[in-house]
Amino acid sequence: MKLKNDLLLRTLRGEHTERAPVWMMRQAGRYLPEYMKLREKHDFFTRVQTPELAAAITIQPIDIIDVDAAILFSDILVVPQAMGLEVQLIESKGPLLPEPVKTQNDLKRICVPDVNERLHYVFDAVKLTKKELNGRVPLIGFAGAPWTLLCYMVQGKGSKTFDEAKAFCYSCPDLAHQLLQMITDTTIAYLKEQVKAGADAVQIFDSWGGLLSKADFENISLPYIRQIVSALKDETKVIIFAKGAWQSLKEMKETGAACLGIDWCIEPEAARSFSGSDICLQGNFDPVKLLSPIPVIKKEVRLMMKGFGKGKHIANLGHGILPTVPVDHARAFVGAVKEYRFE
Amino acid sequence: MKLKNDLLLRTLRGEHTERAPVWMMRQAGRYLPEYMKLREKHDFFTRVQTPELAAAITIQPIDIIDVDAAILFSDILVVPQAMGLEVQLIESKGPLLPEPVKTQNDLKRICVPDVNERLHYVFDAVKLTKKELNGRVPLIGFAGAPWTLLCYMVQGKGSKTFDEAKAFCYSCPDLAHQLLQMITDTTIAYLKEQVKAGADAVQIFDSWGGLLSKADFENISLPYIRQIVSALKDETKVIIFAKGAWQSLKEMKETGAACLGIDWCIEPEAARSFSGSDICLQGNFDPVKLLSPIPVIKKEVRLMMKGFGKGKHIANLGHGILPTVPVDHARAFVGAVKEYRFE
Repeated sequence: MKLKNDLLLRTLRGEHTERAPVWMMRQAGRYLPEYMKLREKHDFFTRVQTPELAAAITIQPIDIIDVDAAILFSDILVVPQAMGLEVQLIESKGPLLPEPVKTQNDLKRICVPDVNERLHYVFDAVKLTKKELNGRVPLIGFAGAPWTLLCYMVQGKGSKTFDEAKAFCYSCPDLAHQLLQMITDTTIAYLKEQVKAGADAVQIFDSWGGLLSKADFENISLPYIRQIVSALKDETKVIIFAKGAWQSLKEMKETGAACLGIDWCIEPEAARSFSGSDICLQGNFDPVKLLSPIPVIKKEVRLMMKGFGKGKHIANLGHGILPTVPVDHARAFVGAVKEYRFE
Repeated sequence: MKLKNDLLLRTLRGEHTERAPVWMMRQAGRYLPEYMKLREKHDFFTRVQTPELAAAITIQPIDIIDVDAAILFSDILVVPQAMGLEVQLIESKGPLLPEPVKTQNDLKRICVPDVNERLHYVFDAVKLTKKELNGRVPLIGFAGAPWTLLCYMVQGKGSKTFDEAKAFCYSCPDLAHQLLQMITDTTIAYLKEQVKAGADAVQIFDSWGGLLSKADFENISLPYIRQIVSALKDETKVIIFAKGAWQSLKEMKETGAACLGIDWCIEPEAARSFSGSDICLQGNFDPVKLLSPIPVIKKEVRLMMKGFGKGKHIANLGHGILPTVPVDHARAFVGAVKEYRFE
């Protein structure tokens, strides 16, 4: 089916567009009262594993905020779960993996699963969402980067420093690379099936890439992202968002990704100078700034747009939208991007 | 009294030294069993406010780890406390300010205090520490940067994003700047008295500088750091450590600081290219790497030293040492720096 709004895909292909496309990380989420209503009735994994619910949640921000792309409602931790680890998601508290991976023996408890067997509900959700979107906007699929998934699989929960996960990599590099390879193999199969089910592009979230030094990022994270991009890039456009990993923008670009996400802690001009001119950049509005008064949001959006310059830019936040953001502030952000015109 | 080991001060003055000086942020802290013994007997503010205890804790890492500088055992939150806010420090949980600043009215509850009245115990601790150090190594005094203190004074507790503190700055910029100026005035008086009491150098900790975009950092944080450096630099050497604020290294250097601290998420070579060649840099070992096996620590220290190159470098961690670090790993870090020789 031909897309009615293909701004995102044309931008990812490097084509000229009349304006920058805009969407928001975590746009299908807790700041939306419509989402909170479904959340009261269905627990997290019910929402994720029931295609009808996942599709409905995915489409909410298209109806309510009028963004230019949908991103599947799911969670990066479905992959560790499919690999055999128990994952609990305690609302407002974050993830808990009660039996994390610490030793060679623990690795025996996990596997590279048949994704069609363990994650079919995701592919069903993609198919249903595509059908219900009915060509309004493209649908982005996604997965966590292997390093970020390792963080949770080893640490067992969220952390400011992910000290145990990092110490695991420094102390048992062979085990760490085994685990990273297993996650990578699973992720490649997982993303390929998302594309087969209808995802128009995919994003790799390396939320904790910025906890690593440049050398560590390029040893522990980047090689696996590279494998994933290599395996996917002939089938779809791949966006890499490695939060904070500004030092490796050039190396990330060289993976063949179509787009690199950046956060608000790097200026668009600096990111452009590191990544080179021939790649699309995505970002980078400070999500906390959506708590500002609407006139401030509009002014700051104009500064951001000017910073990125014309073309090769997908407007987005620099991290997920916060649950405390008023809906009309989110709408003001999206509206300000759509109104922006280069002189 | 003449210092027996003045490596740190000579490095801060830009002089040639036979090797790089080394100390560790939070070196007087929870990884030391000797510290934990005092912690069992005396609560946090007793330790901070009793000069004999603060001096003993400050000197512990000199005896045990053999670092080249002492840094006063204290806390950045003694300043908000002296300004009139209640500060609770719950062991292993972090700070709590039960009545944070949110409105113009709240500002009336705080003041720019007479530091000699409210913080005399710090100056007494500095004097006693200097006496007991007996010239072995220099003593570093410190304070939090106004932005980082505002984070706690507005948010009321630790946070991953300090969303309320940032939203306060974006929504009520006038109030925010009033508060920042009050903190700055207090901090200048506070650091001047530390120097008068005997501190050989001072460090400004902007732990949350890296949460801000470059433009916000240069609007909200840097102007106040600049005031502090201006007021102090003729009396002592000032080290600025604004974690994550790599985009403003050049601007920080231009304040007249003697040294800039950097974390492990920027390569020494990159930091050098941003800051210019004529300033001392401090850092930047990943504190989590101290959980690695000792041979890995030694190898990584050599890589770090090579990255900084000869001269104008104070070896340190890129953030505070973690409570879980074995003492012999801390010692291995310090030893590896001391052994390092440029070819």
